[in-house]
Amino acid sequence: MSVRSGTVDVSLEALKGLLARIFERNGCSSATASILAANCAGAEAAGSFSHGVFRVDGYVSSLRSGWIDGAAGPEIYSKSPAYVFVDAKNGFAQVALHAARDIFVQRIRENGVALLSIRGSHHLAALWPDVTPFAQEGLIAISMVNSFGCSIPVGAKKPLLGTNPFAFAAPIRGEAPLVFDFATTSMANGDVQLAAREGRTLPPGIGVDSSGEPTTDPNKILNGGALVPFGGHKGSAISLMVELMVAGLTGGKFSSEVDWSAHPGAQTPHTGQIIIGIDPSFSEPGGFSDRSSQFIAMLRDAGMESYPGLRRWRIQDKGSVTISSAMFNRLTEYAAEVKC
Amino acid sequence: MSVRSGTVDVSLEALKGLLARIFERNGCSSATASILAANCAGAEAAGSFSHGVFRVDGYVSSLRSGWIDGAAGPEIYSKSPAYVFVDAKNGFAQVALHAARDIFVQRIRENGVALLSIRGSHHLAALWPDVTPFAQEGLIAISMVNSFGCSIPVGAKKPLLGTNPFAFAAPIRGEAPLVFDFATTSMANGDVQLAAREGRTLPPGIGVDSSGEPTTDPNKILNGGALVPFGGHKGSAISLMVELMVAGLTGGKFSSEVDWSAHPGAQTPHTGQIIIGIDPSFSEPGGFSDRSSQFIAMLRDAGMESYPGLRRWRIQDKGSVTISSAMFNRLTEYAAEVKC
Repeated sequence: MSVRSGTVDVSLEALKGLLARIFERNGCSSATASILAANCAGAEAAGSFSHGVFRVDGYVSSLRSGWIDGAAGPEIYSKSPAYVFVDAKNGFAQVALHAARDIFVQRIRENGVALLSIRGSHHLAALWPDVTPFAQEGLIAISMVNSFGCSIPVGAKKPLLGTNPFAFAAPIRGEAPLVFDFATTSMANGDVQLAAREGRTLPPGIGVDSSGEPTTDPNKILNGGALVPFGGHKGSAISLMVELMVAGLTGGKFSSEVDWSAHPGAQTPHTGQIIIGIDPSFSEPGGFSDRSSQFIAMLRDAGMESYPGLRRWRIQDKGSVTISSAMFNRLTEYAAEVKC
Repeated sequence: MSVRSGTVDVSLEALKGLLARIFERNGCSSATASILAANCAGAEAAGSFSHGVFRVDGYVSSLRSGWIDGAAGPEIYSKSPAYVFVDAKNGFAQVALHAARDIFVQRIRENGVALLSIRGSHHLAALWPDVTPFAQEGLIAISMVNSFGCSIPVGAKKPLLGTNPFAFAAPIRGEAPLVFDFATTSMANGDVQLAAREGRTLPPGIGVDSSGEPTTDPNKILNGGALVPFGGHKGSAISLMVELMVAGLTGGKFSSEVDWSAHPGAQTPHTGQIIIGIDPSFSEPGGFSDRSSQFIAMLRDAGMESYPGLRRWRIQDKGSVTISSAMFNRLTEYAAEVKC
């Protein structure tokens, strides 16, 4: 660990350890703490600052509120060959995915395609860490999560949908996987929170205030206002799809049904998640493997210097992470506090 | 059939018959002609004018150019329980889907989810007619098609992707299915063609001219220019996903590989199509059926007077279609022409 003026360089492993201690001290089982810590530190290392250590306050606050069970053990079952269910039992979605991962991958490889349905889960993290490992194993993954009522679909008059992220990962032969992950709102909630914390105004078109009027003030969006979907009616349609697919297929809550009013401090949406996994090794002729590398070559030939996921991939393994001294101090204090 | 000034009211059945005769006279088998006619007449009846009778010129021109085989018999095979392949043998994608439909639905119901991969296919139609019937059978369907190089992804300098439509259909208990279908470009190519034919200018942000400068002239976009994706980098990412998924999983061509230069008059993209089908009857607790009707009630409660697919659903069965006399005359002439 080295300290510069106002910032701290901490090794990725040390950051994971610090975060795991925080999660354990706030009611997480050792396994859950380790999964969350790897996720959160990995996001920070890859430059996903809205889902990195910035989220620790939200995790701690939610755990302390009793809204989420940090020691939950997920239950896995299946009623058909390619459809795997996990009941997260009011725990974290990442823990449910971790528990079901082996059987899900097996079902993808046996059947060519499979569906993982997670319900009763909390997801406060980025989605790309969920889908990227599938691409590293040669599989394609699409994931969707709904969240809490904070977005007004086109044609509606009040918030109804969540930020409803959509993520995709595909293996590229000899290259970094192609991975994207975005809120189907005009901006991710975490980025609005970051802007509010940093006192920045937002570009136009991101959201509305409590009276439904367009605003560039992140505080007005967060306090009684709402986001709008990206891309007009097309983005709105995708956000509707995420909402219906996730709540409908998992039996989890719709975003607008999330009611944490009895748990002050709760910030983790308690909904569901789906992942569609595809084994492209069945494809022919030529195969997905050949085609994927041709595709990236075509993108480069068309002048694209990068492609979705490449930047994160390149910086994630740099071994250490630079965070502000204020944040480092806050994390250290959390880790030292008595278990609640 | 009744004639008003400048327009003709023709029954849906009569229009299908007229269109089928046109397709047969231009080299389609009777089965293919019937499938295309139902698709094209159905789009016109549902108000999808960019994919209705407007497309007949393109179909005829493509068939006459020798670019597509209107009598092709698709070949179906499967290498894993939930992954069904169709080689369209240079025929129409709708014919390949029709041929594989029963086995694909069976695989969806047996496994919970299945993937249909169509390659060597031509798709000049709307996508919603492909996915809607799945919802009518209680299934969820997602479909993607790539097309021909006419769109510049964010970060690229020349056209590379197709209009790459994405479609979704889900059953809603007691209501019309929720169905959407959109080009992942800022506008569908058919709508740009319609605007050019009608002498309209386009809104800003749709495309660029041959020198890469933004333009609102549809002719400049169609002649050496290009479209751009909808929704900035998020829509661009979805369009990249469609391109990689479809060409990669089917073994069909990438949009930018479509080369019809040896077939003057060819207008049908010769690529591939995928459909992901899900059987939501496995979902629990409460089930997708309950949740779907709750979702529509929530949309209405939030002030949405309609939802994607509802308008088309309501008008599609009105029994007759009004088309311009000029178009009706053109269709009648096509139908009377000697088989090429």
